[in-house]
Amino acid sequence: MNRRAVFYTIGQIIILEGILLTLPLLVSFCFWEEKSIIAFSITIFIALALGALTLIISKPSNKIIYAKEGFIIVTCAWIALSVIGCVPFIISGEIPNIFDAFFETVSGFTTTGASILTDVESMSKGMLFWRSFTHWLGGMGVLVLIMAIIPKNTGTDSGRAMHILRAEMAGPIIGKLVPKVRDTAKILYFIYFALTALEFFFLLIGDMHFFDSLVHAIGTAGTGGFGIKADSLASYSPYSQWVITIFMLLFGVNFNLFYLLLLKRFKAVFSNRELWCYAGVVLISIAVITWNIFPIYNNFSDSLRHSSFQVAGIISSTGFASADFNQWPQLSKNILFLLMFMGGCAGSTAGGLKVSRVMLLFKLIKKDISRLLHPRSVTAVKLEGKPVDNNTLYGVSTYFAIYIVLILGTFLFISFEPLSFESNFSAAVSCINNIGPGFDQTGPMEGYAVYSNFSKFILSIAMLLGRLEIYPVLLAFYPKTWSKK
Amino acid sequence: MNRRAVFYTIGQIIILEGILLTLPLLVSFCFWEEKSIIAFSITIFIALALGALTLIISKPSNKIIYAKEGFIIVTCAWIALSVIGCVPFIISGEIPNIFDAFFETVSGFTTTGASILTDVESMSKGMLFWRSFTHWLGGMGVLVLIMAIIPKNTGTDSGRAMHILRAEMAGPIIGKLVPKVRDTAKILYFIYFALTALEFFFLLIGDMHFFDSLVHAIGTAGTGGFGIKADSLASYSPYSQWVITIFMLLFGVNFNLFYLLLLKRFKAVFSNRELWCYAGVVLISIAVITWNIFPIYNNFSDSLRHSSFQVAGIISSTGFASADFNQWPQLSKNILFLLMFMGGCAGSTAGGLKVSRVMLLFKLIKKDISRLLHPRSVTAVKLEGKPVDNNTLYGVSTYFAIYIVLILGTFLFISFEPLSFESNFSAAVSCINNIGPGFDQTGPMEGYAVYSNFSKFILSIAMLLGRLEIYPVLLAFYPKTWSKK
Repeated sequence: MNRRAVFYTIGQIIILEGILLTLPLLVSFCFWEEKSIIAFSITIFIALALGALTLIISKPSNKIIYAKEGFIIVTCAWIALSVIGCVPFIISGEIPNIFDAFFETVSGFTTTGASILTDVESMSKGMLFWRSFTHWLGGMGVLVLIMAIIPKNTGTDSGRAMHILRAEMAGPIIGKLVPKVRDTAKILYFIYFALTALEFFFLLIGDMHFFDSLVHAIGTAGTGGFGIKADSLASYSPYSQWVITIFMLLFGVNFNLFYLLLLKRFKAVFSNRELWCYAGVVLISIAVITWNIFPIYNNFSDSLRHSSFQVAGIISSTGFASADFNQWPQLSKNILFLLMFMGGCAGSTAGGLKVSRVMLLFKLIKKDISRLLHPRSVTAVKLEGKPVDNNTLYGVSTYFAIYIVLILGTFLFISFEPLSFESNFSAAVSCINNIGPGFDQTGPMEGYAVYSNFSKFILSIAMLLGRLEIYPVLLAFYPKTWSKK
Repeated sequence: MNRRAVFYTIGQIIILEGILLTLPLLVSFCFWEEKSIIAFSITIFIALALGALTLIISKPSNKIIYAKEGFIIVTCAWIALSVIGCVPFIISGEIPNIFDAFFETVSGFTTTGASILTDVESMSKGMLFWRSFTHWLGGMGVLVLIMAIIPKNTGTDSGRAMHILRAEMAGPIIGKLVPKVRDTAKILYFIYFALTALEFFFLLIGDMHFFDSLVHAIGTAGTGGFGIKADSLASYSPYSQWVITIFMLLFGVNFNLFYLLLLKRFKAVFSNRELWCYAGVVLISIAVITWNIFPIYNNFSDSLRHSSFQVAGIISSTGFASADFNQWPQLSKNILFLLMFMGGCAGSTAGGLKVSRVMLLFKLIKKDISRLLHPRSVTAVKLEGKPVDNNTLYGVSTYFAIYIVLILGTFLFISFEPLSFESNFSAAVSCINNIGPGFDQTGPMEGYAVYSNFSKFILSIAMLLGRLEIYPVLLAFYPKTWSKK
């Protein structure tokens, strides 16, 4: 275990966070929110000092790292980010409880969007911006950002970068867009930034103000879901809701496809099976829910809008709401519940299992049944036309098993709460899949404030497990990982 | 596909069912229930005629069968058993709706014990006995019974018998007790019969009448759970409840261990890891629930008794209830919910995933995490001291994936019902794991009568999938299976 290399990267991350915190500081200056200005300034100082100190004392002699270190770097970096990130909330007194502040920050970085706030509208603009900005940073990945912006040095060779990319990016198979990992990171962030700007523009020309447009654009981009109103997106115009619906769906698409679009390789985009599967699930879900909720709205366009918004919100794991879907018929709620498991495409900012992983799971099941019929035949499973080796394939089923065990475990640990089965079970599923809202007492118009500190901590860990796709976090808590050999 | 061999075995099964139906006929005679006498007589005639006809027209020229045929025989046999088995309910008019009667019979044979009856106490004794007797037959397996009783002929060679044993017995690894499969079947049924008789005796010397003791003994043995009172076991004495608690737990133990006890190989029994794991889970669950429900009963012995009874009832997948656990605190309910997934030991009559499968799943997860740390090391997973090959190991994770997908699928299909999330989700979990009661509107003092015919049919299939451990049923519905090649 190359501990120095791990701490060195964490130092870099903390300094980056210190620099990035100047943005919410700027927002606080614009709205002249004194407490927030002080809170952000102190946090920036702490971050820079702590980061610099870490860099100095952990300067590694040997910069070679392996997959193991890649995992550990990512987990520790995310925990460090969240710990520093919650300081402004505590100092400003806007979220005085440390468990609340940690929950809210983890929920931000992991792009979950579950909130413990009971009165979000009374928060300062600076804090609201910071909350949503964590979504944007966590969506594409903070370490990916470091790769994209820090000039090449010997410490960030391609092998190292690839290990980190694999650990931080979501999906069963991570591909590079271009031979160099660093360039891949740059392209990804360029697309990410461009799409966010586009959404911001479309929201701005609607009925949203500058600040609202900005916050919702970055919240959508990271597929996060922190809103700035008590009723999430319900009070905005149908136009704004449609814009957000479309962008939520777009941010659930594999970013490689946007890159292919830029290269004008349209055929490759349209032959992408994962995209078709994603689109199919979205369309079918919208159709069934529109039919199911029609009696409530008595109006096709409203039913279609709310159905589309909620389906996009859940499958992309954003978790914004345009209506209190908790009040919908059980069928619609149950479809939304099942969509929580699937999530968006691999290589997107969305959470959940990812469409391609679900596809592989079904292919594996089909292969298993065929094998019973023809025990000696060898059938290769393919994804996007390429054969998938057995390690990847069984890796998916083992991943799924751990994932389900963790959902059930999280559910058990938060069962001490006097909340209903539906509230607790959906909260566990929602947090691990980084969605945000659950159902019943954890529904879109409710929140996580009802939970005890213990349960909030458990759910924070669940969100981290989900965002980093389990293994990095488990490995960090596995004692053998830290042995010197 | 050797179709003739399949139909031939089904013919045998139907004739056996016709013969076995004379037992409830006898009960009906004892209580002189005219309608039941007529209903059973007609059904016996139908079964014998249909069975004989099938035997005559499908006399196979070639009796060799493979694993595939083993699976198909078991599925078709179980469907045939259930279809014939529900005829008495319909003819007698006690369960006039065909979907209800089919549900009740499948629930019986699969040892689920979920009931659509709203007034079980008004049923005739003959029908009550038949209902519980299906548990006893389904528990150890009807095809295993055929093996045990039909004299050896060329049609039941060892290879064939093993394929059927594998398909009908539950658990990830099926072992023979003795070299000959036929003798294994005989020993299993002997132990099964002896334990049932023992429970019957202990119940009889308590406050239960002859009929009640008989019905509850066979219902416990199959880990079924059909009661004969509206409040299940709640109105019987603490003594009877304790007897049933102990026997529910015993029938959740691998029958191989009872055989080892008979051989006085005590060391082998006590070194069985699965048994320790099962006992550990039971004891911890009982302890936590006793503590959790203490404020309700304000009495240690009542709390312990109800906690033990419910834990034994759920983990052994019997589903009897001594109290309305639906009214318990959420923590206790959630523990019971999670126990539904685990079930009893492999090689028992219990449902669920089976303890050894859960153990293998955790070992696989641990192996996977270690592999991340030491990519090149090869660590063999062991179960009961013997190495488990990769096929079995990944077979377990694929099985788990299919199992979860089927639970979620069943849940989606019954979501058209206006029942609560908790009711529907627990019903899906309960039926696939062959437990019986769920929670909320499908709780132990409620039932499945609230469901539509469509949902009852879906849940019937779910019960079959669970009892036959998925593959046989899936294979029977897979078109390629039936091709002549």
